[in-house]
Amino acid sequence: MENMYKIQKLTVVGGGSTYTPELLSGFIEHREKLAVDRISLFDINRERLETVGGLVSRMLQRAELDTRLELTQNRTGALEGADFIVSQIRVGLMPARILDERIPFSHGVLGQETVGAGGLFNAFRTIPVSLEIAREAARYAPDAWYLNFTNPSGIITEALLNHSELKRVAGLCNVPINAQRAVAELLNVPSQKVWLDWIGLNHLGWIRGIYVDGRDRLPEVIERLSQQLSDEASERFPFESRLLHDLGLLPTYYLRYYYATQNAISEVQKAGKTRGEVVLDIERDLLGRYADPNQVIKPEELKQRGGAYYSEAAIRLILSLLSDRRDVQILITRNNGAIQGLPDHVSVEVPSIVGAHGISPLSCGKPPAQVKHLLESVKASESLAVEAGVSGSRRKAVMALVANPLVPGFELAERLTDELLEAHRRYLPQFFSSEE
Amino acid sequence: MENMYKIQKLTVVGGGSTYTPELLSGFIEHREKLAVDRISLFDINRERLETVGGLVSRMLQRAELDTRLELTQNRTGALEGADFIVSQIRVGLMPARILDERIPFSHGVLGQETVGAGGLFNAFRTIPVSLEIAREAARYAPDAWYLNFTNPSGIITEALLNHSELKRVAGLCNVPINAQRAVAELLNVPSQKVWLDWIGLNHLGWIRGIYVDGRDRLPEVIERLSQQLSDEASERFPFESRLLHDLGLLPTYYLRYYYATQNAISEVQKAGKTRGEVVLDIERDLLGRYADPNQVIKPEELKQRGGAYYSEAAIRLILSLLSDRRDVQILITRNNGAIQGLPDHVSVEVPSIVGAHGISPLSCGKPPAQVKHLLESVKASESLAVEAGVSGSRRKAVMALVANPLVPGFELAERLTDELLEAHRRYLPQFFSSEE
Amino acid sequence: MENMYKIQKLTVVGGGSTYTPELLSGFIEHREKLAVDRISLFDINRERLETVGGLVSRMLQRAELDTRLELTQNRTGALEGADFIVSQIRVGLMPARILDERIPFSHGVLGQETVGAGGLFNAFRTIPVSLEIAREAARYAPDAWYLNFTNPSGIITEALLNHSELKRVAGLCNVPINAQRAVAELLNVPSQKVWLDWIGLNHLGWIRGIYVDGRDRLPEVIERLSQQLSDEASERFPFESRLLHDLGLLPTYYLRYYYATQNAISEVQKAGKTRGEVVLDIERDLLGRYADPNQVIKPEELKQRGGAYYSEAAIRLILSLLSDRRDVQILITRNNGAIQGLPDHVSVEVPSIVGAHGISPLSCGKPPAQVKHLLESVKASESLAVEAGVSGSRRKAVMALVANPLVPGFELAERLTDELLEAHRRYLPQFFSSEE
Amino acid sequence: MENMYKIQKLTVVGGGSTYTPELLSGFIEHREKLAVDRISLFDINRERLETVGGLVSRMLQRAELDTRLELTQNRTGALEGADFIVSQIRVGLMPARILDERIPFSHGVLGQETVGAGGLFNAFRTIPVSLEIAREAARYAPDAWYLNFTNPSGIITEALLNHSELKRVAGLCNVPINAQRAVAELLNVPSQKVWLDWIGLNHLGWIRGIYVDGRDRLPEVIERLSQQLSDEASERFPFESRLLHDLGLLPTYYLRYYYATQNAISEVQKAGKTRGEVVLDIERDLLGRYADPNQVIKPEELKQRGGAYYSEAAIRLILSLLSDRRDVQILITRNNGAIQGLPDHVSVEVPSIVGAHGISPLSCGKPPAQVKHLLESVKASESLAVEAGVSGSRRKAVMALVANPLVPGFELAERLTDELLEAHRRYLPQFFSSEE
Repeated sequence: MENMYKIQKLTVVGGGSTYTPELLSGFIEHREKLAVDRISLFDINRERLETVGGLVSRMLQRAELDTRLELTQNRTGALEGADFIVSQIRVGLMPARILDERIPFSHGVLGQETVGAGGLFNAFRTIPVSLEIAREAARYAPDAWYLNFTNPSGIITEALLNHSELKRVAGLCNVPINAQRAVAELLNVPSQKVWLDWIGLNHLGWIRGIYVDGRDRLPEVIERLSQQLSDEASERFPFESRLLHDLGLLPTYYLRYYYATQNAISEVQKAGKTRGEVVLDIERDLLGRYADPNQVIKPEELKQRGGAYYSEAAIRLILSLLSDRRDVQILITRNNGAIQGLPDHVSVEVPSIVGAHGISPLSCGKPPAQVKHLLESVKASESLAVEAGVSGSRRKAVMALVANPLVPGFELAERLTDELLEAHRRYLPQFFSSEE
Repeated sequence: MENMYKIQKLTVVGGGSTYTPELLSGFIEHREKLAVDRISLFDINRERLETVGGLVSRMLQRAELDTRLELTQNRTGALEGADFIVSQIRVGLMPARILDERIPFSHGVLGQETVGAGGLFNAFRTIPVSLEIAREAARYAPDAWYLNFTNPSGIITEALLNHSELKRVAGLCNVPINAQRAVAELLNVPSQKVWLDWIGLNHLGWIRGIYVDGRDRLPEVIERLSQQLSDEASERFPFESRLLHDLGLLPTYYLRYYYATQNAISEVQKAGKTRGEVVLDIERDLLGRYADPNQVIKPEELKQRGGAYYSEAAIRLILSLLSDRRDVQILITRNNGAIQGLPDHVSVEVPSIVGAHGISPLSCGKPPAQVKHLLESVKASESLAVEAGVSGSRRKAVMALVANPLVPGFELAERLTDELLEAHRRYLPQFFSSEE
Repeated sequence: MENMYKIQKLTVVGGGSTYTPELLSGFIEHREKLAVDRISLFDINRERLETVGGLVSRMLQRAELDTRLELTQNRTGALEGADFIVSQIRVGLMPARILDERIPFSHGVLGQETVGAGGLFNAFRTIPVSLEIAREAARYAPDAWYLNFTNPSGIITEALLNHSELKRVAGLCNVPINAQRAVAELLNVPSQKVWLDWIGLNHLGWIRGIYVDGRDRLPEVIERLSQQLSDEASERFPFESRLLHDLGLLPTYYLRYYYATQNAISEVQKAGKTRGEVVLDIERDLLGRYADPNQVIKPEELKQRGGAYYSEAAIRLILSLLSDRRDVQILITRNNGAIQGLPDHVSVEVPSIVGAHGISPLSCGKPPAQVKHLLESVKASESLAVEAGVSGSRRKAVMALVANPLVPGFELAERLTDELLEAHRRYLPQFFSSEE
Repeated sequence: MENMYKIQKLTVVGGGSTYTPELLSGFIEHREKLAVDRISLFDINRERLETVGGLVSRMLQRAELDTRLELTQNRTGALEGADFIVSQIRVGLMPARILDERIPFSHGVLGQETVGAGGLFNAFRTIPVSLEIAREAARYAPDAWYLNFTNPSGIITEALLNHSELKRVAGLCNVPINAQRAVAELLNVPSQKVWLDWIGLNHLGWIRGIYVDGRDRLPEVIERLSQQLSDEASERFPFESRLLHDLGLLPTYYLRYYYATQNAISEVQKAGKTRGEVVLDIERDLLGRYADPNQVIKPEELKQRGGAYYSEAAIRLILSLLSDRRDVQILITRNNGAIQGLPDHVSVEVPSIVGAHGISPLSCGKPPAQVKHLLESVKASESLAVEAGVSGSRRKAVMALVANPLVPGFELAERLTDELLEAHRRYLPQFFSSEE
C-alpha cells in the first residue's frame, strides 16, 4: 500500500481566482495520497474571496475532509508557516488584460495575455507585486515551495529566480500536461506511456520526439494531424499541414501566435471580442454560480475558462516533491545549461526530474536550427522584460518590446510602450517614480 | 617615398555592371601607388560588356595608363592567372530584383534587394552561380584574392567561405566606409582619426563607440543627430530621435528596414516605385551615357546609383593586402569567435586587420543585449539561406524566411516561398531538380 | 503484480572473462522480473571460454532456468539477432595491462589500467577491436543495445559513439553504484533514498550533493569521513581529511590517482606488485575454481577481482530500458550539453533518465571551479586518445599523453609513447601501418 | 616629418628596480618622438631609490634632456597627475623569490618566479599591494594609463582588471617582442615584416603562424630550429626537436617549464643555484655599478638581468596610445572573447590593436586541440589565484595550486601551501587576518 503524504499548510495567493475550485478539486480527488491540514486563501479582493471561498468551503464539506480553510486579507499571516505557496494572481484583473489586448490590436499587431506587447505589460504589472509576495514568503515561510501559476509564468518565474530570496521556486503551466494527453489520445495509448522530447519556454514549446515503447512516433503524429487539418487550420490545432512537415517538430498551442499571426488576429476581428472580453463574461457567470449556496462542486462551465488539468499539474508536482518520486515533469525552471545557447539564469520550460532534492532539468542540447532564432528572440525579450519590470526603466521596456517577434519595428515599440504605460499607469509605479 | 605595388591581372566578374567605371576610376586615382598590368572584364551580357568596356577603355586612355584591358565572355580565360578577382554579379538583373521587391510588397511586407524575403531569394539565385565561379577560380587562380561585392554580400560570402575551395575570400560593402565618412563630417574631423567600434553583419551594423583622440564621442553624435531629426525621420538617416536614445548605439542605414519597417513600406507606396524600378531607369540612362564616345570619365550621375566610395573600399583592401599595411578595415569575413554567440563558420561584418597574411577580425565580444536578438535572428536566417541555396531544399528556404524578422509567421513564409520560387523558376534550377 | 520482461538473446563479447559468472548471477537473481531466452558467450580464447562457460552452465542448471547457453568463437553468429550486447574485452589480457603499469612506473609516473599513460595505451589497443565488433553488431543486430563495460570505458564508449554506426550505446561502470551504496551505508539510509548530485567522466567523478529526504547531507558526510581518516589516508577512501574540506566535494575512488599521486605510486612500490600482477594471481585462482565441476555458484573470491555490483549495474540498466522505468542511473553517455564547457560529442558520466526511449542525461551545468581544469584536461586527453586510437597517428598519441595530467612534460610523453608503442606493437597495427 | 608626442608626467612605481635605467634608456633613445616633462620614481626602499635615481639622473643629464626627475617615497604624490604609471614592483624582493623557488624544489617540483607554486605565491604577495596602488592611482590619476610589468604579469593584470577602479590598464612582458625578433633573425627578415599568429597567456604563449609577405613560414622555422637542436635541447630554446614537430606550433620560452619540466629542474640542481640566487648576485653587482658616479649610461651587464627590450615594449605601447597608431602589439589584456572557451573577464596575452581609443584584442578563435588543456588549466589556476590573493582564503590558495599543472596532486598542494604561507607570512596579511 502506498504512503500518505501530508501538507501542514497550503497558501493560495490570489485565492479569489475563479481557478481556485479547480485546484481544490484536485486535492479532493487525491485525498488518498495527500492530506492537507490547512488551506489559506489570500486575496486583496474581499468580495471574490468570499464568493470563491464559499464554494471551496462547501466542496470540502461535501468531501468530508477535515482540512481547515482560512479566508484572509492578511498576506503575512497567510504566508507564515506555509509548506506550499501557490501564486495565481492577476494584477488589474480582466480590465487590464483587455487593454493588453486592445491597444496592440489597434495598431494591427497581436495583443495577448502572455505573448507580445500585452504579455510584456502583464509582466511589468505583475513583477513588483510578485517580488513583494516573494520577499514576505522568503521571510515567513523560508522552506516553502513557491509554485507560480501567475502569468506570464515564464517571465514571472524568471523574476522570482533572480530577484528574490526564495530557495524553492517552480513555474507551472498546464500546456505540457495537456499536450501529453492530447498526443496519447491521438495515438490511443495511456498518457504515462508517452515520452515527450520537449524543448522550449513557457508558452513556446516544441516537441522533438514522441516515444512510445521505444519508438519515435512523431512522424506518424505529424502525418495524422496533417490529414485532419483542412486548408484552414482547425481551431484546436491552429497550424497548417505544410507547416508541420516543414518544421519537422510538433509546435504547441501558443506558437500559433508566432506561426499563424494573421490568422490569430483575424479570428479576434471576426469575433469582435478579445479573449479577455470573452473571459470577462465567463468569469461573471462563474462567480454567479460560485455564489449559489447549492453549488457544492466545481461547475462544468469552469472548463471554458481554460485551466484544464491545472490542478493535476499542481498536485503531480507537489506529490513528487513530497514523496521523492523522481519522475519527469515538464516545468518552468532555471536553465542552468539545459538549453544550450541560453544563459544559465533564465527560465525555460523543459522536462525535469522532480524529487525531494528539488527539480533537475534534463539536458536538452542545442535547439533545432529551425526554431533557435524564435526561442532566443522570445527569451531575450522576456529577460529584458524582467529587467524593465524590476527597474522601471522605460528604455528597457522599449527594448523588451523591440526584441519581441510580435512587435515589428522600433517605432511601434515606442508607440506601444507609451500607450500601454499610460493605460496601466496605476499598476506601474516603478516606471513613474524611476528617475531615468 | 612610398612603394609602388603591382597587380599582374585583375578580373572583374560581372564586368558589364554599371559600377565598373566607379571601380576603374579608383585604380586611376591611385595610380601612384598601385599599377595594374591587365584588367579582364567578364560578363555574360555582350552588349553591356561592350558599352561599359568602351567607357573603361576611354578612361584608361585618357589617364594614359598602359594597363591592358580585355573584354571577354570566356569565364575560364578571364579567371586564369588572376591576382585579384572582383565579383559584382546580379543574377536576373533588375527585373528579378523588382520581383524580389514587388511580391513581398503585395503581401504587405518589405521587399528589398538584400534584406527580407527579397534578399533571401536574391541569395538563392546567386549562390549557385557564385559557387560555380568560385570553383573555376580555385582551379585557375588558386592564389588569387576573391573580393565579393555581389549582393547579398553577407550571405554570398558565407556561401563562398563554406562551400568553395577558395583560400582567400573577403566580402565588401561600402556602408562602413560611408558611415565612417559621415560621422567624421558630422564631428568635423578627418575620417582617419575616427575609430568606429562596429559590430554586426553586412547591412546590419551597429556602432558602439566613436573614438576621436581617445574620447568616445558617440553620445555627442547621438545628441546631434537627434536634434537634426524632425519628428518624421530624415531620408538620409531614417531613425527617430527617441530610437537613438533608447538604443544607445548608432544604427547604420539598413537597420531602417527593421527599426522603421512601416516607414520604409510607406515610402515605396508613396513613391509608387520600388528602388529596383528607380534603379532600372538610372541604369538605362547611365548605359546611354557610357555608350557616348565623348564620355571619357565616369559620369556624375553614377552617384545616384548608390555605390559611393565602392572603389575606395576595394582599393583600400587591395593595397593593404599587397603592402602588408595591417590597418583596420570593416570587412565581411569568417566569424571565428569575433562575435560571441554566433557560430565560427558564419560571415560577419567586423573591424579587421588587413595585411599580407590576410584578414584578422578583432574580437567584438558579446553583442549588446538590445540588439543581440536581431543579430542572431538575421544570421540564423542567412545561414539557413546558404543551406537552402546550396541544397535547393524548399523546406530550408521556408525556414530561412521564417527565421527572418521581416517575414512574420509561417503561413506567409510558405506563401512567399511558393510565389517567389515560381517567379524566379528559371534562375533556381537547384530547387526544381532536387528530389526532396 | 509486476511485469515480467524478456530478452530473446543476450550476447557477451569477451564471454571468457572471469566477470561473466558475476553477470550471470545477476540474471539468476532477477529471474522474477527478467527472463533471458538465450545467452551467447563469445571469446577468442577457447580455453577460457570453456572454463567460464562450464561454470555458467552449472549455475543456470542449478537455478533451474531454461535459458539456452551458447559458447562460440564465431563472432558474427554470436552477435546476430541479439537484443543486448555486453562487451567486456581486454586486448592483450593481463600481460598487456602489466606493461601499461610497469613502463610508466619505470619513469616514476603512474601506470594504471584506465588512467594515465597506461589507460591511454589500453584504449589504443582496444579501440580498433571494439570498432570492429561494433561494425558487425550494427549490421547483424541493428536494434540491439550495446552495453560497454570494456575499459577504459569512458574512452571506448566515446569511440563507439563517434566512430560506429551503433544507434544504441551506453557505457557502464560499477563505481557510481558502489559510491551510492557506500554513502547510504555511512548515513544508514536505504540506498534508493539517496540522490547523488554527480558530475564527471568515467573514473573521474565528483559528488556535489547527497540529498536524503530533501536535505543535502554532503557536509555531514565530509565531516564523518574526515574523522575516520587518519593522517595517512585509509585504503578504501584514500584521501586526506583536509582535501575533503578544501575541495567541498566528495571525490570518488579513482581521483586518488590525481589527488594522491605519490601515495598511489608508493603503495605499488611498497607492495612490489602492480594491480595487474595481483589480478593475474587472482584470475589464475578463479579460473581454477571455475574449472571445478563442483563449483555451481560464483565463488566468494570473485569479490577480490573488483567488479562488485557489476551485474547489478547491468541489470538495472537493462530493466529500465525494457520496462520504460524512467529512473535515474549514472551512466557513460554522449555529453550533448550535460556538462557545460565540454563538447557535445564527448562521453561523460552523469545522472541520466533511462527509459524505453533511451538515455537522457540530466543537465549538470558548469563544473565547480575547483575541478573544472582536471575534468577538462582528462577529457581532452581522452578525446585525443580516441583520435589517436582510430587514426593510428603517433603524433596524436603523444598529444593524448601530453594532455594527461599524470604525464608531466612533453619529453616524458614522447618517451612513454615510444616505449609503449614498442611493447604493444602486436596489438597496435594501426600505428605501424599508418603512413604518417 | 613626424609628430612629437608629450607626456606630462610618468610615474614609476618600484622606481628603485635595477630595470629602471633600461626603461629610461628607452625614453632617451626615442627623444625625437616622445618628450617627457617629468619622471617620478617612487620606491619604498630609500637606498635603492637613491642609487638607481642617481644613475638615471646622470643618464638624463648626459643626454641633455630637460626632463624633470623626482625621487620620492610619497606614493600619493608620485601618482598624482600622472599620464602614465609603470608598475614594476617585487614584494619581498629577491629573498622572497628565492623561497618561491627553493620550497617547491625541496619537494621535487618546479619553483619559479611566475609559474608553478612559486608564481602563485608571488601573486599572493603582490596582489594586495598592487590593488592598493591601483586604488590611489584611480583616485589621483584617473585618466592615466597603468602599465603593469610587475610579475606574475598575467595574474596581476587580471587582478587589476577585475578588482580595481582603473579604467586604463595593460599588462606587458618582453617575451613577445623578443620572440618576434628571434624569429625575424632566424629568417633574416626585418622584424616588422613578421606577422606572428600568437595565442596564449602571459608566459604561456604559442605561435600558430609566422607570416612573411603573405606566406606562412612556421613549418620552415620548425624545421630549422629542429636541425639546430641537438638531442639535448639548447639553453636558449630548450625544446626537443620531436616536440616541435609533434606540437606543430612554436612554443615560447616559458613553456619549457611545462614541456621539459625535468630538464628545468635538473638544470637548477646541476647549477646548485636557483635563478633568484643568480639574480641576487647580478643585482648586487649592478647596484654597485649604478652607484658609481662615473656610470652615466646603463651598464652592459644589465642584459644578464633578463629584461631585454623591456623599454622597447613599453615605449612602443606608449607611443601607439599617444599617437593613435593602431598597430598590432602582443599585450596582456581582458579576454572578452579573444580566446574562445576562456571567460570574458580573464587576462590573456594576444595580438591587439593599440590606438588612442585603447587596446582591442584580435579574435584568436579556438585554441589548438593540442594546447587547449594546458591553456585552460593554467588560466584556471591563475583566476583562482586572483580570488585567493584578494580574499586571503587558504582554501582558494590550495585550489589555485591544485589547478596548476606543475603541482601534481592535492597532498602536495596542501603541503606547499602550508610551507609557503608560513615562509611569506609577513607579506600575506590577508591570509592571516581572514576569518575563514
